[in-house]
Amino acid sequence: MRKVYLNMKTRAEAREIWFSRFQDLNPGAEEIPSVEAAGRVLAAPVSARLSSPAFHAAAMDGVAIRATDTFGATKSQSKRLVVGESAFYVNTGHRMPPGTDAVIMMEHLRAGEDWVEFDAAAYPWQHVRKVGEDIVATQMLFPTGRLLTPACVGALLTGGVFSVSVRKQPRVLVLPTGDELTGWEEAAKSGLPDGRIIESNSHTLGGLVREAGGKWEPLPILPDRFPVIRDAVDRAAKSGCQMVLVLAGSSAGSEDHTARVLGDLGEVLVHGVTMMPGKPVVLGDVNGVPVLGVPGYPVSAMVAFQEFAGPLLRRMQGLPEAEARTVAVFPSRKIPSKLGLEDHVRVKLGRVGGRIVATPLPRGAGIITSVTEAHGVVRIGNESEGVGAGEEAVAELLVPAAEVEKTLVAVGSHDNSLDLLADGLAVRGLSLSSVHVGSMGGILAVKRGACHLAGTHLLDTTDGTYNLSYIARHLAGIPVRLVHLVMRDQGLLVPRGNPKDIQGVRDLAEKDVLFLNRQAGSGTRVLLDYRLDQEGVSPTDIRGYANEEYTHMAVAVAVKSGAADCGLGILAAARALDLDFVPVVTEQYDLIIREEHFGSDKIRALLSILADPEFKKAVQTLGGYHTERMGEILL
Amino acid sequence: MRKVYLNMKTRAEAREIWFSRFQDLNPGAEEIPSVEAAGRVLAAPVSARLSSPAFHAAAMDGVAIRATDTFGATKSQSKRLVVGESAFYVNTGHRMPPGTDAVIMMEHLRAGEDWVEFDAAAYPWQHVRKVGEDIVATQMLFPTGRLLTPACVGALLTGGVFSVSVRKQPRVLVLPTGDELTGWEEAAKSGLPDGRIIESNSHTLGGLVREAGGKWEPLPILPDRFPVIRDAVDRAAKSGCQMVLVLAGSSAGSEDHTARVLGDLGEVLVHGVTMMPGKPVVLGDVNGVPVLGVPGYPVSAMVAFQEFAGPLLRRMQGLPEAEARTVAVFPSRKIPSKLGLEDHVRVKLGRVGGRIVATPLPRGAGIITSVTEAHGVVRIGNESEGVGAGEEAVAELLVPAAEVEKTLVAVGSHDNSLDLLADGLAVRGLSLSSVHVGSMGGILAVKRGACHLAGTHLLDTTDGTYNLSYIARHLAGIPVRLVHLVMRDQGLLVPRGNPKDIQGVRDLAEKDVLFLNRQAGSGTRVLLDYRLDQEGVSPTDIRGYANEEYTHMAVAVAVKSGAADCGLGILAAARALDLDFVPVVTEQYDLIIREEHFGSDKIRALLSILADPEFKKAVQTLGGYHTERMGEILL
Repeated sequence: MRKVYLNMKTRAEAREIWFSRFQDLNPGAEEIPSVEAAGRVLAAPVSARLSSPAFHAAAMDGVAIRATDTFGATKSQSKRLVVGESAFYVNTGHRMPPGTDAVIMMEHLRAGEDWVEFDAAAYPWQHVRKVGEDIVATQMLFPTGRLLTPACVGALLTGGVFSVSVRKQPRVLVLPTGDELTGWEEAAKSGLPDGRIIESNSHTLGGLVREAGGKWEPLPILPDRFPVIRDAVDRAAKSGCQMVLVLAGSSAGSEDHTARVLGDLGEVLVHGVTMMPGKPVVLGDVNGVPVLGVPGYPVSAMVAFQEFAGPLLRRMQGLPEAEARTVAVFPSRKIPSKLGLEDHVRVKLGRVGGRIVATPLPRGAGIITSVTEAHGVVRIGNESEGVGAGEEAVAELLVPAAEVEKTLVAVGSHDNSLDLLADGLAVRGLSLSSVHVGSMGGILAVKRGACHLAGTHLLDTTDGTYNLSYIARHLAGIPVRLVHLVMRDQGLLVPRGNPKDIQGVRDLAEKDVLFLNRQAGSGTRVLLDYRLDQEGVSPTDIRGYANEEYTHMAVAVAVKSGAADCGLGILAAARALDLDFVPVVTEQYDLIIREEHFGSDKIRALLSILADPEFKKAVQTLGGYHTERMGEILL
Repeated sequence: MRKVYLNMKTRAEAREIWFSRFQDLNPGAEEIPSVEAAGRVLAAPVSARLSSPAFHAAAMDGVAIRATDTFGATKSQSKRLVVGESAFYVNTGHRMPPGTDAVIMMEHLRAGEDWVEFDAAAYPWQHVRKVGEDIVATQMLFPTGRLLTPACVGALLTGGVFSVSVRKQPRVLVLPTGDELTGWEEAAKSGLPDGRIIESNSHTLGGLVREAGGKWEPLPILPDRFPVIRDAVDRAAKSGCQMVLVLAGSSAGSEDHTARVLGDLGEVLVHGVTMMPGKPVVLGDVNGVPVLGVPGYPVSAMVAFQEFAGPLLRRMQGLPEAEARTVAVFPSRKIPSKLGLEDHVRVKLGRVGGRIVATPLPRGAGIITSVTEAHGVVRIGNESEGVGAGEEAVAELLVPAAEVEKTLVAVGSHDNSLDLLADGLAVRGLSLSSVHVGSMGGILAVKRGACHLAGTHLLDTTDGTYNLSYIARHLAGIPVRLVHLVMRDQGLLVPRGNPKDIQGVRDLAEKDVLFLNRQAGSGTRVLLDYRLDQEGVSPTDIRGYANEEYTHMAVAVAVKSGAADCGLGILAAARALDLDFVPVVTEQYDLIIREEHFGSDKIRALLSILADPEFKKAVQTLGGYHTERMGEILL
């Protein structure tokens, strides 16, 4: 029952096959009122029916006169004309009275009851908008293919064109497939049944269809059954639509029917593209209708859409390809890539000092938040094994460039109060890029100049101080400031009811406990090792000591799901997932900020948030936080 | 009854006054379904209600097993597990069966009826998406102020968030004023009454409101009467809308009521801004509602909107300011500017050789086609007197940068077949920027490298040839090609019925005729002077010989409107405006193309159009054209 991909194609080959196959596809034309035509594309050239102005019109407020009547007027010998006979008051836009051919501006007149006087001759057609100055009846206003703007609508009306023939918006039918899917309306009404997933891709891709100028129609969720999907695709392709998207089932597994369906109903043009995400895509032709087998993972689905469906929809309408804006970036850490695959790596961007630092986001095709968090995409070609840390690379921007300038880059230890800080910055028009690599990772990022700030909670086990001795040792010679964020309770996260009755770190070795550790270099790990040492417990006696996670929340999730019995973390993480919490210690969490960034608007905004009593209250509400000294400058 | 502007403000001052006055204006929030939220801005942070995945899920097709059961498997010593006992077939996305913690991919298995065999140990959580890998319930998904994309909609649904609180779209009431205005529906039904103008600005600005994320509501056209406008603005400002636009009447003329209305109902913040177009703008505050007095000329109206209304609407919603994309450009001729005024000059752009050439479009505030034709805007600051030809300047792009690359720049003589050529290029995804400066102007543009091609029909009166001797003289040393476009009939354009009975150029001097000339340097002017010389007519005997226009259509318009009795032009222009035509000569119109551009895709597309019988037919339909030799390469 397992199939293999047909010959995989490169992205460029696949696009060439797809676009050339459907190059003549055209959704046809329709006549619509000009006032509704902004954003649409002309299907035929448009010629003006009226001239604008349609008559000689005064271009200024003043008097309309015949220029020859004014000849000879000078400063020393002014001329006077009789109002109603040879001079006529006009306002801007008024028709020029018969026999007149120029306007003298109000500002250049002296006026009596029935006369006007002036000191300079007018030249013929002075301050007059002649018939057709803007638009001449019969002239072509816009050629075929013109994307109409609001200004074009104004020009159409002005030219007496009240309806226009435009390209129809392509209709796209979207077919979600998968036994595990539940529609959001049902989940909203009755909750999500266990083991099910909310169907979201149709709405994501539907939104992208709309952005590409098309109209989408959702079809009901289909089960993973070949004949059902085959019939649905068959009906869809015969419905007169311009594209069909079959969601999920595009890979080569036993339940992946799309390729076979397309082969059965028409022709599979491409199955599999050497790009990540988006590899398991199917491009097909069913009776002249482009049918795209879209991978089921949301990130793959979006990449497949943006590479194939979106551009084809735009071409059908004669819209220009969406423009890629690129910037030079420097990865904050190595971005590896497989030879033979084109990797599309989503990155967070922020300008740190003179250059834009790119921090790779999680690369899993299932991680939709890696798209919503992304500022850009770094493409790594088939022939490259990746980009090294600090090596220049090119990122395509997914957000306005200004967004990058407004981003504070935080690299270091994770703390839940950073989410609240992000919201506070957002309200002030800034954004926070928060990357979690542990406290030591943060210090090294400060050293490399790859971030604005680093959250850190590193205990010096020799004197009980936090952070200061680490800064002295690892950031010697680099001027930095240290700002206190919070004191927070760390403890053991255990399932509700504490079934293994864990009372402290000593129990990790003595009871039958599967522990989940934090990664080496994290403040929490330092703290654990310190407490184990104090209690005389050997790490080798702890089951799971070698299993590592990178954030408090990840540890909490593992405990919640039963993947571990216990892990060290903050109270806020326990609260968030309704776990029990065994306090171990209250520790200090600070922010290291390079001196050179300290006076910047972004850091000033951050300090103003730390001084805000509302913010302190919000952090306390998370649980396990002590905010008395928040914002204190320690260094 | 005449007023003066209050103290004029610079653009920067006026914006500062306007934005700071209304900085706290907020349209409020509303709750909408997540599936409709793309393009909207969050009014509050959003946290996930569900984790994703909500369970440990297989990330590959294969068998789910317990990793410890696989330990010890190697190439030399494979391991076998029983299906249904310790191994379970799973597809991507399936929940992991209880007790399993890893997946072995189908590709790495050998399978029997009830067993699977493999050659390598699995590590714990291999090919498994753990609970919360993407989204952890309770985590903040998006902060306040986030502009939601289709991907965000996917993340919201995945996180179990089915409705969100977003900023309301600001409501904008649009009040057109002016006795001379007729609505387009009325004009479409009953024709445009003489002396009236079609009201178009409300639709143009309404479209811009929509682009800025707002909703607009048109109000009926108001007469130019103070109490009527006052009452309408009063009602509008009390209607709960977020902005009022009063169209026209913003200047300082006797019929310009907006400033007085705003002073009466509230406060005039600014009247008059030192920028062109857009100078006569009024910025007011009526009971906390921003009211913009928008100038009546369409270009001024759009500039005033884009400087003041659009950015304020975006700020209200928390949307980022529309991003200006700029390019370095080189004006093809001097762009003068008044000291003390900030000039916004609309330009056509095209890449000619290595640089982008900017050709200024007509600058009249009434010329809406100067906006629809524009590729960009060059801003010339208050302290500058302009930009010289070939001096570097900065243009803000109004079109995708790719549009500039696709533009063929034609500078030279005007011919109506160029409109058809533009349409043919548009169908091929290219565009034509056509600037009319006469044949000699075109030759000089070729010499300066300021265009791709120049239309020219210069008669050598010594030998009766066209163009060749001019090229030899003026473009010596510059490799160029010459492509024949058309033979065309030139003649005298006269009103229908030829009331002055003009039979040839001799009549221009002998009869009581007001002639309208073409500018010196144009091929038509050369032709006229040649014919006058042949006929022994002295230019000084022709009334109007010194009055010049720049295009055939402008001459035709002048004759049509009675501004002149007669002018020399092409038959197509006479046909377009239903004039009579007295043939004088058939002349040759060619295109000069620099050798360096001749092999380019753009020129090749142009040559393919000239070879297209359909195109020849379309040109013949214009009248007075002979296309037998179209496309012949003469040089």
